[in-house]
Amino acid sequence: MMSILKFRCSEFIYLTQSEKKMRGFSIFSKGSRLFNDYPSSSKFLVLFAVSTGGMVAFSEQQPGIGTKTIEAEKLENKKKRLVILGTGWAGISFMKDLDPSLYDVKVVSPRNYFTFTPLLPSVTCGTVEARSIVEPIRNIMRKSTGEFEFCEAECFKIDAANKKILCRTTFESSLVPQREFMLEYDYLIIAVGAQVNTFNTPGVVEHCHFLKEVEDAQKIRRTVIDCFEQASLPGLTKLYPSIQDLVKVTVIQSGDHILNTFDERICDFAEKKFSRDGIDVLTGCRVMSVSDDSIIMKVKSTGEVCSVPHGMVVWSTGVGTRPVTRDLMEQIGQSNRRILATNEWLRVKGCNDVFALGDCATVDQRKVVDDIGAIFEAADTDKSGTLTVKEFQDVVEDILVRYPQVELYLKSHHMQDVTDLLKDPEGNEREEVDIEGFKLALSHVDSQMKSLPATAQVAAQQGAYLAKCFNRMRDCTESPEGPRRFKGSGRHQFRPFRYKHLGQFAPLGGEQAAAELPGDWVSIGHSTQWLWYSVYASKQVSWRTRLLVVADWSRRFVFGRDSSRI
Amino acid sequence: MMSILKFRCSEFIYLTQSEKKMRGFSIFSKGSRLFNDYPSSSKFLVLFAVSTGGMVAFSEQQPGIGTKTIEAEKLENKKKRLVILGTGWAGISFMKDLDPSLYDVKVVSPRNYFTFTPLLPSVTCGTVEARSIVEPIRNIMRKSTGEFEFCEAECFKIDAANKKILCRTTFESSLVPQREFMLEYDYLIIAVGAQVNTFNTPGVVEHCHFLKEVEDAQKIRRTVIDCFEQASLPGLTKLYPSIQDLVKVTVIQSGDHILNTFDERICDFAEKKFSRDGIDVLTGCRVMSVSDDSIIMKVKSTGEVCSVPHGMVVWSTGVGTRPVTRDLMEQIGQSNRRILATNEWLRVKGCNDVFALGDCATVDQRKVVDDIGAIFEAADTDKSGTLTVKEFQDVVEDILVRYPQVELYLKSHHMQDVTDLLKDPEGNEREEVDIEGFKLALSHVDSQMKSLPATAQVAAQQGAYLAKCFNRMRDCTESPEGPRRFKGSGRHQFRPFRYKHLGQFAPLGGEQAAAELPGDWVSIGHSTQWLWYSVYASKQVSWRTRLLVVADWSRRFVFGRDSSRI
Repeated sequence: MMSILKFRCSEFIYLTQSEKKMRGFSIFSKGSRLFNDYPSSSKFLVLFAVSTGGMVAFSEQQPGIGTKTIEAEKLENKKKRLVILGTGWAGISFMKDLDPSLYDVKVVSPRNYFTFTPLLPSVTCGTVEARSIVEPIRNIMRKSTGEFEFCEAECFKIDAANKKILCRTTFESSLVPQREFMLEYDYLIIAVGAQVNTFNTPGVVEHCHFLKEVEDAQKIRRTVIDCFEQASLPGLTKLYPSIQDLVKVTVIQSGDHILNTFDERICDFAEKKFSRDGIDVLTGCRVMSVSDDSIIMKVKSTGEVCSVPHGMVVWSTGVGTRPVTRDLMEQIGQSNRRILATNEWLRVKGCNDVFALGDCATVDQRKVVDDIGAIFEAADTDKSGTLTVKEFQDVVEDILVRYPQVELYLKSHHMQDVTDLLKDPEGNEREEVDIEGFKLALSHVDSQMKSLPATAQVAAQQGAYLAKCFNRMRDCTESPEGPRRFKGSGRHQFRPFRYKHLGQFAPLGGEQAAAELPGDWVSIGHSTQWLWYSVYASKQVSWRTRLLVVADWSRRFVFGRDSSRI
Repeated sequence: MMSILKFRCSEFIYLTQSEKKMRGFSIFSKGSRLFNDYPSSSKFLVLFAVSTGGMVAFSEQQPGIGTKTIEAEKLENKKKRLVILGTGWAGISFMKDLDPSLYDVKVVSPRNYFTFTPLLPSVTCGTVEARSIVEPIRNIMRKSTGEFEFCEAECFKIDAANKKILCRTTFESSLVPQREFMLEYDYLIIAVGAQVNTFNTPGVVEHCHFLKEVEDAQKIRRTVIDCFEQASLPGLTKLYPSIQDLVKVTVIQSGDHILNTFDERICDFAEKKFSRDGIDVLTGCRVMSVSDDSIIMKVKSTGEVCSVPHGMVVWSTGVGTRPVTRDLMEQIGQSNRRILATNEWLRVKGCNDVFALGDCATVDQRKVVDDIGAIFEAADTDKSGTLTVKEFQDVVEDILVRYPQVELYLKSHHMQDVTDLLKDPEGNEREEVDIEGFKLALSHVDSQMKSLPATAQVAAQQGAYLAKCFNRMRDCTESPEGPRRFKGSGRHQFRPFRYKHLGQFAPLGGEQAAAELPGDWVSIGHSTQWLWYSVYASKQVSWRTRLLVVADWSRRFVFGRDSSRI
């Protein structure tokens, strides 16, 4: 080892205390320098271009960011300071769509990479490598026109009153000293995500695995292999014809069905398939406590308490609020809420210039009922005290934009036209309605309101939406594009966020998957697995991860999975 | 996350306490089952065969090992029990060449994979992924005809007197219970390797990185990235035009030259290149202590003590004896030695049926001087008290086999014929020599003895040699093939181990390398780097790792290195 290491010492980067004042880009530049400096390298590149898609690679090869000139510094100081917390789905999709030249942007996250979370389960079983589903933040930043500044740290305190945040470094290695620092902001984007919710179930923290971070997935993978290795130690009788019978997967679900966010055709298929695969699905069971070798749970229907032995448990239910978010909620009078609330423009309620998106917050949709008087008044232009169909039609557009539940209500009640709302209880056309009739007509609309699921899809759409708002902040201040304000005058600056559900996948193992597509389409089976492969490959944030993931899949098919416990 | 996890729960393996009695192969079988069960999979395979070398893949696809039948058990109980400690270069090359059908083989190692150590430095800088340079032991075992049994555990006590070892599991996850067990052996192969030697330098253990295991390499990689991230935190002035100038690599060497095991042309080139690259090479400096931010060292020549600040230190000097080996040495009366000694047949001295190879032991070559009397006696067939050239020639062959230093001596003194040894001091032929003359003639031969370096090459050759001995144990007991015994009668069972140096590489960074090839050839530069690539690719233990390593190299060329801290 000694000699080998000496050979390669030129590959170790060595930083002296006084010399740690640089940015972390050189670690990238090496690769591209090789391109230019050495003809042999470029030959090598072409040689492999065929097999690794060198062509697409070039689209990735863009110049790294130089360090700022003093002028640039001055210029940027005039810009509004925008601080982004978190580099998950929400944070990244915001970063990707934001025009960074408009703001002085700082990104703070304990992880210097983005994780493609839908593939985390594949990492636990070695189908895909951890490194294949992560993309360095600095790679993503390099591709943007302007300049971001990234700080690998965790924000542990948001001081909303003084518009500043406190951060702490989270360097894993004890050999790198930790430090704290403060950042001021004009706009703050909170995209820190959620943490696992144990519902205070005893033993969960001590004895369960979670699956939020790459490290979790790697830990699960190692533990599975540990279980196998332990099982193959001497002193255990080996009388079983096959080990397949010895591996047992059990799913415990407190609801009546698994995949309950899916179409029931998919639930049924999944439950049937799992039982064929010998996977026990225990529905309607609430876990009461977890010990090192068993789970105590209560069967809701009978109320009986039973125990299930285990070798390993993965806890994956519910999202909880992070301490930093909880602390902010107490500052701004949301302490009675379960999760941070924003308005329909993703602005945190009771807090100026702070926005929250992704799993850490929820959009608190305004009820029509609360504004019904104001809507009537605004619509009743001639102040006659009654609303004609004509008058109603004038405000309908704004109502539909401002209150999405109205459209959902129309759809669920198969109404072609909004004016159908004004029909009387018997369903006859009416020339006009008074305030009482109007209230009655819209009274059930709010029943259609539902909060958005805590999914990557929602987070990504919110990030893209908010980025567009920030890009057009100035224009929209002069000419607002949102719906009219029923309370007060004028229009809202932006259209509110509207979630567009693009469907969802449910990989079921054994090369089968289920897909729920827009328009109530459902597809199940092997072919769907191929759809799954292609969609997830295309959704990758970079060509690099795309190629790596596809390579991993194909490697798995050719060589099977790798059981090395690293 | 919740739903995603549920989708994939069929991929989590769940073991109940009572059901942990199986072997760990199924984790492999999955992949190949996919092959057979699903037409779509095999299509997929072919689809990617082109890009990932599916053809060679098939050579890897061999049936897993079924569990033993009772008959097989009985049969094996008649076999001698062979226990192998360690799965490094020595252990693996022994396993690969051993015919396991001849013995009841158990392999004990804390790691269930083999690491291609020469590429560890590449892992530290992200040129190659950790997973690409490891091969699961069970994959290697599957390829062998007979059956091995693998135990993921660490041997912490060798009871040589009672021919048994004590082992302890080393499961990383606290969720899997640890246990101890005992194994009995007829033959024991010690290939546990060495541990880092800190020479008791204060602070080294606390503040230095090592580079023996994959985990070390990953830790170094993360720390390097931590250093960069820390350097890019706010509050540090950023006035430097380029960060290249800020990264400093320093090599501290107590000897007068780096790469001192190499041809001096390579030393010179390397030292010149490093100084061009801005790498400080401090030779003739002994490190006295290491603190969290500086190294205290003494310049041997002047005796002055100076301090070098650091952000990260990699300690890579010397090999030390592991506790279990040290403990054995005390049992068998080798406690005064620095490192475990074996004879020329790799059999541990003072200990029956125990063999040691690789970095954990050294071959204690017998001196000619110690046997000179016996040699003379054996050669002097007519007991005349003098040795004729004819008589000498009869034993020369055996001498050359038994004492390799003789051949080296002849070579270094440019003697064509062994009988030249018998010439008188003036260099005249002699008809015969008496014992004194004979002693004189061979007195300097032993000066040519040198101990073997602690390299992968030596370990691998020793493993292969010992495997062949074990495969032919029975034959060679009946008809010994070794040289004649000068003390005692008859012949040695086997020819002693003879190391064949195949040359060595010194990658120098910047796509340059130096190679020292047999026959005193030296090659330096970019072309040598390509030689390095091809040799290291070809030396991989499996097609899987071969493809992964090449893919990593090409990915590095196309996308540069990945700075994600995972």
